[in-house]
Amino acid sequence: MSKGMPRAVVFVKNAEQVSDIVKRLNKEKVPYIARGAGTGLSGGATPFGGEVIISLVRMKKMLHIDLENRKAVVEPGYVNLKLTQSISDKGYYYAPDPSSQYACTIGGNVAENAGGAHCLKYGVTTNHILGLEVVLPSGEIIEISKDGIPDQPGYDLLGILTGSEGTLGIVTKIIVKVLKNPQAKKTVLAYYDDIQDASQAVSEIISAGIIPAALEMMDAIAIEGVESAAYPVGHPRDIAAFLLIEVDGIEAGIDDQINEILTVCKNNHVREVKVAKDEAERALWWANRKMGFGAMGAISPDYLVQDGVIPRTRLPEVLANIAAISAKYELRIANIFHAGDGNLHPLILFDATIPGESERASKAGSECLKACADAGGSITGEHGVGIEKSAEMRFIFSEQEMAAQTDIRAVFNPEDLLNPGKLFPTPGRCVEIRDKDLVPVKGT
Amino acid sequence: MSKGMPRAVVFVKNAEQVSDIVKRLNKEKVPYIARGAGTGLSGGATPFGGEVIISLVRMKKMLHIDLENRKAVVEPGYVNLKLTQSISDKGYYYAPDPSSQYACTIGGNVAENAGGAHCLKYGVTTNHILGLEVVLPSGEIIEISKDGIPDQPGYDLLGILTGSEGTLGIVTKIIVKVLKNPQAKKTVLAYYDDIQDASQAVSEIISAGIIPAALEMMDAIAIEGVESAAYPVGHPRDIAAFLLIEVDGIEAGIDDQINEILTVCKNNHVREVKVAKDEAERALWWANRKMGFGAMGAISPDYLVQDGVIPRTRLPEVLANIAAISAKYELRIANIFHAGDGNLHPLILFDATIPGESERASKAGSECLKACADAGGSITGEHGVGIEKSAEMRFIFSEQEMAAQTDIRAVFNPEDLLNPGKLFPTPGRCVEIRDKDLVPVKGT
Repeated sequence: MSKGMPRAVVFVKNAEQVSDIVKRLNKEKVPYIARGAGTGLSGGATPFGGEVIISLVRMKKMLHIDLENRKAVVEPGYVNLKLTQSISDKGYYYAPDPSSQYACTIGGNVAENAGGAHCLKYGVTTNHILGLEVVLPSGEIIEISKDGIPDQPGYDLLGILTGSEGTLGIVTKIIVKVLKNPQAKKTVLAYYDDIQDASQAVSEIISAGIIPAALEMMDAIAIEGVESAAYPVGHPRDIAAFLLIEVDGIEAGIDDQINEILTVCKNNHVREVKVAKDEAERALWWANRKMGFGAMGAISPDYLVQDGVIPRTRLPEVLANIAAISAKYELRIANIFHAGDGNLHPLILFDATIPGESERASKAGSECLKACADAGGSITGEHGVGIEKSAEMRFIFSEQEMAAQTDIRAVFNPEDLLNPGKLFPTPGRCVEIRDKDLVPVKGT
Repeated sequence: MSKGMPRAVVFVKNAEQVSDIVKRLNKEKVPYIARGAGTGLSGGATPFGGEVIISLVRMKKMLHIDLENRKAVVEPGYVNLKLTQSISDKGYYYAPDPSSQYACTIGGNVAENAGGAHCLKYGVTTNHILGLEVVLPSGEIIEISKDGIPDQPGYDLLGILTGSEGTLGIVTKIIVKVLKNPQAKKTVLAYYDDIQDASQAVSEIISAGIIPAALEMMDAIAIEGVESAAYPVGHPRDIAAFLLIEVDGIEAGIDDQINEILTVCKNNHVREVKVAKDEAERALWWANRKMGFGAMGAISPDYLVQDGVIPRTRLPEVLANIAAISAKYELRIANIFHAGDGNLHPLILFDATIPGESERASKAGSECLKACADAGGSITGEHGVGIEKSAEMRFIFSEQEMAAQTDIRAVFNPEDLLNPGKLFPTPGRCVEIRDKDLVPVKGT
């Protein structure tokens, strides 16, 4: 493991304390890392060893809610799901819904620009952030778009901070958009014998001009996992894949869209397709889907989650490449993905106690990302780069393009004390570590 | 006028020519400005004098269209409206629709992060850009998200370039999203005797959970203008304001939304409200609205367009402040605005031949922006800062917050040869000019 022990963990309560500790650490030249719930999947908040962890978990308050202007102000340690829970009785919700939303914090979501099953229609975290308070590595506290008015003049600091994986500043306050609950939603489950048919159905639904709230796919190995975990649905075990499709919006339009989706599914040789008969069934289907990663622990001692993006139309070809990688490394690979926006999650199953298997899993994961990049895609859709994928940044960026980014980091973080060695390949640090290690996710 | 003569104008045909000229100008330390159609409203492409203009108007081709993956690749000089015109027969369109869309170029739209009447529902230009090719001030050519896959890892270079007003690089290729035409749209026109009632109706429509495709307001002076221009609708001359409200989406949902909008309008003392009876009437209403700025030329020798943003709920209060500014400076101020997203356009009418009137208009404009900033808003929603509003950046940014931005500029543009003096207050350059001049827009 490339993990190391931190030098200390500091629990902060407000921006002034963050500023104070940052200034002291600067003086002593001690590296430091901001950390929320630590649910990230690429090691962004993981110490290499010797860093000070600035934990934001005690900054967990909702500071202000303004439903009339559709915004909420929260501290970074505020748990994602709590926001929706606290406003749902008034008919509002917060859209970004990573599968870890019961535990992950909105500060961490900002750092990673987290996505979720519903980002096909609603966008990722950056589309829902209206303003930030940030402690810069200098110790200065700045406010970006402090009243939450979007489209500010000047350079898009909000955009550059969001998804910067904790390397440019420490977020201490966040203004987020809240949305009105859709009037209605309906959910479809479609079972396929052939993954190509399922992929074709995905393309045709989008081509029809429907933008589903979610359009998820799971393959046979992933189904084996979720059916062995906490929320089995009773999916047939002999299908190639299922699609989970949700539409939401104005009541009057929903049935027409559902009928169109059913027609597309049937035209593409679906084995069985059904609409959730009530909210309880819909909730079960989603609980089953959201267990996807954790459920791998039920069928494999260890697994490595990958996260790549491809143009939607290249799905069948990339899935074939992933199958070939699975055969080459003799490791099973499950696929869970946000099919609507081409965001794949290959889950590479392995057993760390078998010599050499961790290394093979790591190589297989990297090759899956290469397959995505070669198809005109990207090496991460929503999990970030962190420690895990910094070497793979070279699959999609030229040295010039990376230099343009590390030059920006130097503006904010000139001493490279804030979360050093993350995101970009740093000669002698994470690349070296990357070659000999990997960060497996233990099954739960 | 703060305008000056450029040293030369260079018409380029491709990125390599841009790179070549930029490298030569660097060597000679000659400042330069990229320019598209020159329709911008804040002077971003206007020379102070002595700069070389790099004109992109000959780079006007559509390079590639991929409707299956919903994207188009265009050169920067490609005219905004041409994109929609070229794909509308296949059922697609490009969403950002500035009123100048018949003339403005997509490269200029990227530089200014241009908006339009439909950005309430669809977002501004930055929400529609998938990738860019950019010539940096070093002369290097970089590609950002070259296959148009969004949510790339690393820092959000796409976001920081978009809306950077031509100060970070010269865009030479743009990948944009194209959208499927909505199945149906309907448009409502509502006449009000009291602008407070109209404002309240705006708030209630949004509160009802409807997101109209557009929600526009024009006040009595603006109506006087458009009724004197090329596309009179026959609006009553004695109303306080009208609302132009458009909904689009799935056919089945439209009528319910329209009925809800009509109910809200009636509950707020509307004098008359009607639905466009056919596409011809709808088109006329929009032509009339989109003439708004130019039409001021029919009722005033000169006018100054301003562009501020406020939280939607502060509309009545800010309108009252603008009325007070009008009285103070003894200048008529028309108001045309994207009411749904709180983006105001006060149009200050003046006569530049009357001594002192230009200066009064300039001061009145600045005070309108101060009123927006004081209400928790911003000094520009979609027109940019350019020359015109660089002094007003201080209304919303602290010195630290501006330094964070000018430090980023220095990374890309260390010699400050690319579009110098724009966007940020530069001591001794634009502030000084700002105090004695203004950029009036001549009526057409």
